[in-house]
Parts: sequence; C-alpha cells; structure tokens
Amino acid sequence: MELLEQRILTDGKLLPGGILKVDSFLNHQIDPLLLRDMAREWKRLFADVGVNKILTIEASGIAMAVLVGLEFECPVVFAKKSRSLNLAGDVYCVEVPSFTHKNVNKVIISKAYLGPDDRVLLIDDFLASGAALIGLKALTEQAGATLVGAGVAIEKRFQGGGDALRAQGVRVESLARIVNMDDGGIVFG
Amino acid sequence: MELLEQRILTDGKLLPGGILKVDSFLNHQIDPLLLRDMAREWKRLFADVGVNKILTIEASGIAMAVLVGLEFECPVVFAKKSRSLNLAGDVYCVEVPSFTHKNVNKVIISKAYLGPDDRVLLIDDFLASGAALIGLKALTEQAGATLVGAGVAIEKRFQGGGDALRAQGVRVESLARIVNMDDGGIVFG
Repeated sequence: MELLEQRILTDGKLLPGGILKVDSFLNHQIDPLLLRDMAREWKRLFADVGVNKILTIEASGIAMAVLVGLEFECPVVFAKKSRSLNLAGDVYCVEVPSFTHKNVNKVIISKAYLGPDDRVLLIDDFLASGAALIGLKALTEQAGATLVGAGVAIEKRFQGGGDALRAQGVRVESLARIVNMDDGGIVFG
Repeated sequence: MELLEQRILTDGKLLPGGILKVDSFLNHQIDPLLLRDMAREWKRLFADVGVNKILTIEASGIAMAVLVGLEFECPVVFAKKSRSLNLAGDVYCVEVPSFTHKNVNKVIISKAYLGPDDRVLLIDDFLASGAALIGLKALTEQAGATLVGAGVAIEKRFQGGGDALRAQGVRVESLARIVNMDDGGIVFG
C-alpha cells in the first residue's frame, strides 16, 4: 500500500536493535485518516471470505482493528495481556513472547466473545517473528472459530514470521512489506 | 445518550464491588457502530472548541478515541501505562492509581506528541474517582497544551470524580450518567 510505505519513509525512524519506530502515526500518536484508509484496503482484500469478527491484541492493534470492524460492520475483540479483575475465569489463554518488551505475556480472551460461529480476521500493527499472530491463531483454534486471514500493517519479511504463517495456510495480507532495513535505509518488497 | 444507556441496561453486568462490566460491547468486545455513534455525539457536543488532538489512555480508551479522532479529523494520542523499550526518555509522566486493577501505573506520553499548540479533548470509557482523567489533565498541563474538555462513555456520578473535575473547570460530557447501582439495578440521572 503506497500510502503507508510513503508514510513509513517520511515519518518512521530506525532505532538500533532492528526496531522501526512508527509511533508518530501508528501506535502512540495515531493518524485516524491513514488508519481508515488501511482498514478500507483490508476490507477490499478480505471482502469475500465472510469475516464476522475482528480479533487483535492490546494495545497497539486496537485502533486499526476498530476501524476494520467499522468497515465490516462486525464486532471487534481485543485479547488482553494479563488477567484483569474484571474478567471471570472463563477465558481462553496463550503465552506470547514480546519482541519489543523482551518478556512473555499471558494473553486471554473471554470465552463469551469467540466461538465456533466466528469467522475471524486477525489485525495487528507489526509482523516480525509472528509471535502475536501465532498466539491469536491459537486462541481462535481454542474457541473452535474459523481463521479467515490476518491483516498486518507492517511486515518485516526478513524475520520470517509471515512466511511461517503462510506455510501453515494462513492468508496474510501486509500493507507494507520490509525486506531490508539493515544499513540505515528501509527497502520494501 | 439514550442508545448507550439502553445498551448498558441490555448488555451490562453488575459485579460485586461496584464494578459495571460492559466488556461485551465497550472494552473487550467492541461494537464499532455504537462507538461511532458515540464519537459523533462527542463531535456534536465539542464542535465549537477547536479540538485538534484527542488524548486517551491505553487500552480501553483507544477504540473510542480513534473514532473521535476520525470525526474531528485530528491526531489521537494514547498515554502508555509503563515505560516501553521503544520510547526515548523524553516523556511526560504521571502516576495513576487504577480502581479496577488495584495498583498504580506510571503513565507516559512522548513529548513529541503533545505541546502548546494542542487543544486537547480527553476520551475515556469510565469516569469513577476520576484518577485517569486527572492524570491525563496533568500530562496536558505538563505539555503546556490547552484542555478543552473530556468525553466519557460512562460516569459513575456517585463516586464523585466527575464533579471534582467540573469543580476544577473541566467541561466533562458523559454519555451515560449512573447515579445509583447499589441495589442490583442501574439508575441513570
């Protein structure tokens, strides 16, 4: 998606350690008009697969996911990163390692909000090792729901998570695919 | 807002300890069409105060805030609940006690995304003691930005936070105001 790639080149920042910082428009400060355009692109890409639930993980996936839900006119569920006092014990649960924060989170979804009738589109901001999406896929399977695909804003292809998911039969649609950002520049492909 | 009050009566659940659970449509599973209608109501209420930035706190405020940002066509910033490895040291910071989780969070905003030119509308799902909004107000003041108001989905009036904020001159617009939920029923007013 040209619009997102251009925005990454204009406003993204490369940090040491393989971190691409896009928090001026995607995941700290958010440009809602850009995200709406991204949501419409995912709507176009996944128009014919009967999506009736959007699933993401807190916190940075929520903004995109709710706009995708608006396009599909279906509910959005965000998996939570630790047990809240507000959640009853009746939850699906997986462990997800975080590339950014160098820790492991328990990620849960209330069983009330994901089930066999759901045709689930996963949404997330980054796809690197694929840990978050693998966790969301596992939650979908625990619920007996059908995974119809995954919409990702930025895929770091050189980290392999996207190809691993595709090899498992998951349709992954990334709006910006980075093949190299080693030498200080970002190369899409 | 009639639509939200009806939804609370239909789908909300009262738990022991003064907790109103609305996670079937507001903050675990999200109804994006309801949230869009709420965003449009805040747009109507705050149409004339020159809003150019929406500020919320992760995670449950993000979905509403991004839809409000879409209505105002302005950036949305969400304050983060702990130091991320992705954030540089240049942040505004406050401590916010959590009613739900019974702990205290450090809440931060990168200085790059809030400043003296910003006319800030705060957005959050619940207003009880007011701790979250007081924290966001303090962050706004640290940045030298102008606070033009606060849009809240559900105000628990009997906990006093809303009136305390109003007494400090903050314009608070709550879409559902609960005056009593002691005896198993929810009373709006």
